[in-house]
Amino acid sequence: MRLSRYFLPLLKESPAEASIASHNFMLRAGMVKQNTAGIYTWLPLGHKVLKKIEQIVREEQNRAGAVEMLMPTIQPAELWRETGRYDAYGPEMLRITDRHEREMLYGPTNEDMITDVFRSFVRSYKDLPQMLYHIQWKFRDERRPRFGVMRGREFLMKDTYSFDLTEDTARQSYNKMFVAYLNTFARLGLKAVPMRADTGPIGGDLSHEFIILAETGESEVFCHKDLVDMAAPGLDVDFGGDLQALVDERTALYASTEEMHDADEFAKVPADKQLSARGIEVGHIFYFGEKYSAPMKATVMDKDGKPVTVKMGSYGIGVSRLVGGIIEAFHDDKGIIWPKSVTPFGAGIINLKAGDEDVDAACETIYSALSKAGVDPLYDDKADRGGVKFSRMDLIGLPYQIVVGPRGLKTGEVEVKDRASGERQNLTLDAAINFVTEAYG
Amino acid sequence: MRLSRYFLPLLKESPAEASIASHNFMLRAGMVKQNTAGIYTWLPLGHKVLKKIEQIVREEQNRAGAVEMLMPTIQPAELWRETGRYDAYGPEMLRITDRHEREMLYGPTNEDMITDVFRSFVRSYKDLPQMLYHIQWKFRDERRPRFGVMRGREFLMKDTYSFDLTEDTARQSYNKMFVAYLNTFARLGLKAVPMRADTGPIGGDLSHEFIILAETGESEVFCHKDLVDMAAPGLDVDFGGDLQALVDERTALYASTEEMHDADEFAKVPADKQLSARGIEVGHIFYFGEKYSAPMKATVMDKDGKPVTVKMGSYGIGVSRLVGGIIEAFHDDKGIIWPKSVTPFGAGIINLKAGDEDVDAACETIYSALSKAGVDPLYDDKADRGGVKFSRMDLIGLPYQIVVGPRGLKTGEVEVKDRASGERQNLTLDAAINFVTEAYG
Repeated sequence: MRLSRYFLPLLKESPAEASIASHNFMLRAGMVKQNTAGIYTWLPLGHKVLKKIEQIVREEQNRAGAVEMLMPTIQPAELWRETGRYDAYGPEMLRITDRHEREMLYGPTNEDMITDVFRSFVRSYKDLPQMLYHIQWKFRDERRPRFGVMRGREFLMKDTYSFDLTEDTARQSYNKMFVAYLNTFARLGLKAVPMRADTGPIGGDLSHEFIILAETGESEVFCHKDLVDMAAPGLDVDFGGDLQALVDERTALYASTEEMHDADEFAKVPADKQLSARGIEVGHIFYFGEKYSAPMKATVMDKDGKPVTVKMGSYGIGVSRLVGGIIEAFHDDKGIIWPKSVTPFGAGIINLKAGDEDVDAACETIYSALSKAGVDPLYDDKADRGGVKFSRMDLIGLPYQIVVGPRGLKTGEVEVKDRASGERQNLTLDAAINFVTEAYG
Repeated sequence: MRLSRYFLPLLKESPAEASIASHNFMLRAGMVKQNTAGIYTWLPLGHKVLKKIEQIVREEQNRAGAVEMLMPTIQPAELWRETGRYDAYGPEMLRITDRHEREMLYGPTNEDMITDVFRSFVRSYKDLPQMLYHIQWKFRDERRPRFGVMRGREFLMKDTYSFDLTEDTARQSYNKMFVAYLNTFARLGLKAVPMRADTGPIGGDLSHEFIILAETGESEVFCHKDLVDMAAPGLDVDFGGDLQALVDERTALYASTEEMHDADEFAKVPADKQLSARGIEVGHIFYFGEKYSAPMKATVMDKDGKPVTVKMGSYGIGVSRLVGGIIEAFHDDKGIIWPKSVTPFGAGIINLKAGDEDVDAACETIYSALSKAGVDPLYDDKADRGGVKFSRMDLIGLPYQIVVGPRGLKTGEVEVKDRASGERQNLTLDAAINFVTEAYG
């Protein structure tokens, strides 16, 4: 993409409403614009990151055997009456009346609706287990939306729902998501720790939050230090096999959110391994058995023709929230530092003398080569001076910058800067192209 | 995908509420489930088609130079008050009050909001033209939703907005979308004819609907027959160049929707070229100049530092409606016949004797080879009898079926059926794999 043809409206000043780094940088880097409290337009740069995260989440769901579908944003109130949640859910539920005075709502979550979809079609134990997911916009009418997309009202979420015949197989479904989540967050560049968590309005008796550590985290968390750097299971995990050992390895050590914290248990962790820190929730998984399937009569016939109420779990990842979470984890005072897996563009090309024949030609050569190689570069072809271009590129945080100016070109060289380390090297055009291409190879 | 692990809930009977083919087949083939009037869950098979259409629409927008972003579904009423549309828009607008008693709405379209985004950031003629689009769920509270996803209440739409300094360049933006739409519909396998159209609640003085002909179309249309088979401009069009001749070629011949129909003009078309038929609107483009930019004060400074109100157009494609539209165009009495570009799976593999060692092995070989080749096969590995499998595969309409049974395997052969023509051929495993792979090459 050529910057002159892109829509990248940067802000010069830090907006007053931004109290945390991700909110500040997302506004300054032209990633989002607030339309009204807690509701955002995703400008092109922000939208690209959102889509990349969504795609990684999707790929890891598919790998774990979950099947994608899509439920609507607007739901009929009847479904929520069946489970008693229509009245139980507080003012965070956006209630709507349509032109025929029917009661509707903008879905804050989908347990009730997916249970209805399931019971409409599935009759036999032979069709179990089922694991279905969707990636859809949700709405929670927060009393005080804040922290930008981290606590917005309209937000994008991946939610998966599992249906099993027995508690044992339901536990296996839970484990699949547990492992898929570890792999998902690792691909996003994040160190997410699964922690025992409260089940809140979803309900159930088994639940883990996946937490990334960040000073600006919304809640306090407590865990064994070794969990933070424990490697993810890896993409070659056999999801058809038994995953219990992988899960046990990560649940044997202490890790808990504030709500479930047990100070006495935590005290048993060796003192030099005790970690108490601020954390950001990026995923949350629940096993809740028959909480929805019982009132909604989601049953299947077992081998003996006897009706069995299915056992369910639900598994969420905050896709739009992750954009903020990743920035909280990766930034410096100059701006964002994107992990390669979610960067909106693979590299930036800075033309230090737009209009100069040689510089333009060199930039075009690099732009064309990187485009062909699938690196998807952003080419700053505007007429601004170097200082403006450098700080703009640092702010939007692409992993590599290729700086092309008349001085370097005299010896046939350009400068390649690594945004994370700040390291710079002078390379020939070809070497620069190869270096960046191989970084994504 | 193995059918035994997929969620494909087929209906045996034609549902009473389905009055047109697409609605009937989408319900019977397990593509959608209605949650409440005009609001649908996209089951896995339907969701796959929806995503494929969305991706083709996206690619052609990008090729034309439009930049993707994403506006929220919920909008503040203030924006619509500025343009006077909050009161003008009838009961089709879903009006919402949030917990703080603020007036909101579920966006039925986005002219007002995009104009607000534009005026917040763009100040100079140097930043024009701009062409921004998003693909987002919209809501129109139809009094009587019907025809399944063809006239639902919650629907997926691609809408693009152009901003130009002058009417002349605005006309060029209009032409870009005109040409991009022709290419888009051609890639979807559709013959869409641009027709002079009424501007309705969007407003403006220049507008074309893109119409596909189908007996079940919602409106009557009139056009010169030659337009129906006129080839699309093609993907190598230079969107930086002048597209007027391409547009003129397609607007010189008579083509009009019922609202704009001029019987006297139509009578001048040679009698054997007069076509009056039913049509389905799949796209609609508008030029409306300053209709939104004037009341919302979206101005930029021109070369001389003088404020100029920008000239706007908007361009919509009904993505979810297209799923129905494509089925209306491509089906027979047995079911759907997907165009290759949007088929949910590239081919179906029918195992006629699940459990038989040789048949299972042959199916696995084909399944694995086609998966690796990127054909994305659906493997019917269930225990049902042949008749059930044949009609199931015909119903869901994948372009190719590979039928594997013990009899054919004795001579090392399988049967490949072309869903559209019904032609069958006996081929060796390798030849069958190659044949299907090359069909997608």
